[in-house]
Amino acid sequence: MASNRPEMLAAHYAVPMLGAVLNTINTRLDVETVEYILTHSESRLLISERGLSVNAGAAAGLTSVELCQLAEQKGHVVSGSLDLLTEDHGPDELPAFAMADEWQPLCLNYTSGTTGNPKGVFCHHRGGYLNALGNVLALGLTCSSVYLWTLPMFHCNGWCQTWAVTAAGGLHVCLDKPDPSLIFPAIAEYKVTHLSCTPVVLYMMLNHPLRKTRQGGHRVSVNSGGPAPTSALIAQLDALGFDLTHLYGLTESFGPATLRQLDGEQQHLTIERKAVELVKQGVRHLTANRVRILDENGNDVPADGATMGEIVLTGNTLMAGYYRNPAATEKAFEDGVFHTGDLAVRHADGNIEIRERSKDIIISGGENISSVEIESVLHRHPAVPLAAVVAVPHKKWGETPAAFIELRDGMTVTAEELRAFCKLELASFKVPSQFAFTELPKTATGKIQKFVLREWARGPGAGSAHG
Amino acid sequence: MASNRPEMLAAHYAVPMLGAVLNTINTRLDVETVEYILTHSESRLLISERGLSVNAGAAAGLTSVELCQLAEQKGHVVSGSLDLLTEDHGPDELPAFAMADEWQPLCLNYTSGTTGNPKGVFCHHRGGYLNALGNVLALGLTCSSVYLWTLPMFHCNGWCQTWAVTAAGGLHVCLDKPDPSLIFPAIAEYKVTHLSCTPVVLYMMLNHPLRKTRQGGHRVSVNSGGPAPTSALIAQLDALGFDLTHLYGLTESFGPATLRQLDGEQQHLTIERKAVELVKQGVRHLTANRVRILDENGNDVPADGATMGEIVLTGNTLMAGYYRNPAATEKAFEDGVFHTGDLAVRHADGNIEIRERSKDIIISGGENISSVEIESVLHRHPAVPLAAVVAVPHKKWGETPAAFIELRDGMTVTAEELRAFCKLELASFKVPSQFAFTELPKTATGKIQKFVLREWARGPGAGSAHG
Repeated sequence: MASNRPEMLAAHYAVPMLGAVLNTINTRLDVETVEYILTHSESRLLISERGLSVNAGAAAGLTSVELCQLAEQKGHVVSGSLDLLTEDHGPDELPAFAMADEWQPLCLNYTSGTTGNPKGVFCHHRGGYLNALGNVLALGLTCSSVYLWTLPMFHCNGWCQTWAVTAAGGLHVCLDKPDPSLIFPAIAEYKVTHLSCTPVVLYMMLNHPLRKTRQGGHRVSVNSGGPAPTSALIAQLDALGFDLTHLYGLTESFGPATLRQLDGEQQHLTIERKAVELVKQGVRHLTANRVRILDENGNDVPADGATMGEIVLTGNTLMAGYYRNPAATEKAFEDGVFHTGDLAVRHADGNIEIRERSKDIIISGGENISSVEIESVLHRHPAVPLAAVVAVPHKKWGETPAAFIELRDGMTVTAEELRAFCKLELASFKVPSQFAFTELPKTATGKIQKFVLREWARGPGAGSAHG
Repeated sequence: MASNRPEMLAAHYAVPMLGAVLNTINTRLDVETVEYILTHSESRLLISERGLSVNAGAAAGLTSVELCQLAEQKGHVVSGSLDLLTEDHGPDELPAFAMADEWQPLCLNYTSGTTGNPKGVFCHHRGGYLNALGNVLALGLTCSSVYLWTLPMFHCNGWCQTWAVTAAGGLHVCLDKPDPSLIFPAIAEYKVTHLSCTPVVLYMMLNHPLRKTRQGGHRVSVNSGGPAPTSALIAQLDALGFDLTHLYGLTESFGPATLRQLDGEQQHLTIERKAVELVKQGVRHLTANRVRILDENGNDVPADGATMGEIVLTGNTLMAGYYRNPAATEKAFEDGVFHTGDLAVRHADGNIEIRERSKDIIISGGENISSVEIESVLHRHPAVPLAAVVAVPHKKWGETPAAFIELRDGMTVTAEELRAFCKLELASFKVPSQFAFTELPKTATGKIQKFVLREWARGPGAGSAHG
């Protein structure tokens, strides 16, 4: 549980080499979720960073997990803490590799899915190895590459870039936080060639005064995932000297499963045409296997750019399953393919494009938020018999959760009260930004029509009119 | 059986996709050897190039293998020949992948070992896939790379570059033959970034008048293997704008198993120091597993730069075995490691360096020649009861075979007569360049001391004094 410190990168090598399983934990999570992850994963040791250690310490205290704190950076060593970088009493020889089988666990990554509790995505060495090499191919990493860590390593192991950059012999530049006032100077100082981040970080960079320092600077390969880039974003990135690669994937696919980048000739397209191309999720990552779009009968949809189906994945770069959750694993791999839950079309040129993301996931600031988790919390409020949470577009975070509430007859509650109620049980980034009180639209069989709510949330005055 | 034509590259994809096994045959081989390979490999179809088809046709005629000739290049289509590039009546859809198992055969490569008959190195998809990605990493190939084919694709599938360049999305520039009068213009015209070749081709380039066209040209990454580069070669390559990577491997290891290249700081070393570094075989290829040097008792030699042992390999990028030759396979993998037969030391920095190559192999112009094969031919001559063949340094070819002959009592034969005799049975590049008539040096147990012969061969007037 640490920021992008060198020790966090080292852990991506040291822990697997010991034969242990790396379980990086999102530093933004609340104590209860961290405790759940530590307990569910049967963790033996929690290494955390001072400053982030309040939640870590509290969660460890609620379990029997041993806590080890990393020393402060910049030489300010705290007694009893672990100092990997300046102490030199390590073993003279590396311990023997404790890896005997390529299907052996490499890491666990807890991810919010469509159920309330996070699920432990269990990844094997084979998949991590191959997807790391896939990233080398996709991003053109070489021993001359300089990679800036603007993506949290705790997030799906930095999409396997933790291993990819080293596989290519490139240089990692660690960055405590994705702050443009650190990013722009680092790009110039270290002659950064590559970085990965969510669109949120890109927007922060575009709105920062230091962007002027990029004038006349070298070009940087930027790969971004999550929400698809908009044409406005692409135009501004281009002017900043950033060449965008659009990646799509899930924690369950070790990060990148498809990619879209412009080839030589497409570099000369208009910004509008570039945006049309780059918004696509693209073609399969080279180390992935088949990326298919299946209709309800399990048949591949035609490559007509119109017929929707679900993206399903097969191949080596898929998780072994959800740890200690055979039901969810079986559901995810129903019919022998991995179900992403994302609905997409295939264009005539082979590129796929998502038309409707997995309905119950909200991606805010690059973090997956489960609408079901929020709904469960809301349902615990005595005045809320029925709540539905959907994504609403947000300028900074990409999306935030919006809650629609059907009140219990004769009871009232304000948006402020519900916000405070949610904060008691949820990490702050999961707390809905909007609350609307209304009768929920339902199908004849009583199923909530979330697509209607999404339209309401996008519409003018949504939320404020009700809340 | 073809030169580096586009069809030859296409065959590296089409044949495995059909579920068939690709068996590229050295175009310099004599009819008898081609016939042996076709028969031993149980070939079903021989595709050959017109012009090279004399031997191919003769060999196919001696077997029941169907012969298919490629059309002439440059539009000169021959009736009844196969024209892959201009005819457009291919299937609308690719046939389904016929690959069901990563251990399935990908290709056979017949290689001259220490026994007379060539052995069929049986390679699997898993190894080819991984070594191709290893080459991408080693050479820093990207979608901007332009690769010039100065290495025969029939030689160990071009060290897996046939697949590596495409994996990275780079451009292949096919070249019929490694002729400097074609190479220099191609480098300039296509802005070649990478090429692979044996030192022989590099010497040819250095001695060619067109080398002056490289003045002020862009730098090219050159990877070379076989005989280690000399300091004179390295100095001249550097001046030509060529950055050398030294590769070491065998057909049995899908080509590259180790590599040596200079890092940023080492680029500033003197030529003499660079040569000392680049002559080393280096460190393991990233997709290889362990490269060890074992003493006679099977223990790793110390990293002292002095203690010799045999290089042994383990990992995914090793052949499955020699086709239809369990005895040779068992010997090669004795004690669970692959025995290269090459003797080397390990330096303190981890780099390995060969001190004595597998004794019975002569590498001439990048081709493996079996001394045992030549000896067997010589032993068929009535006047030759005992012959020993060793490598002798050669300015153009790196090495050539030198034969030492013990004559039968009372009989005589001249070097010219033996040369003519060998030509009847051997490809011309295998015919010894020198013949010496002398009593052979032997150990107490009667074993021929080839190391003494190698000294004689290197000594002043060797061969000519006797021959």
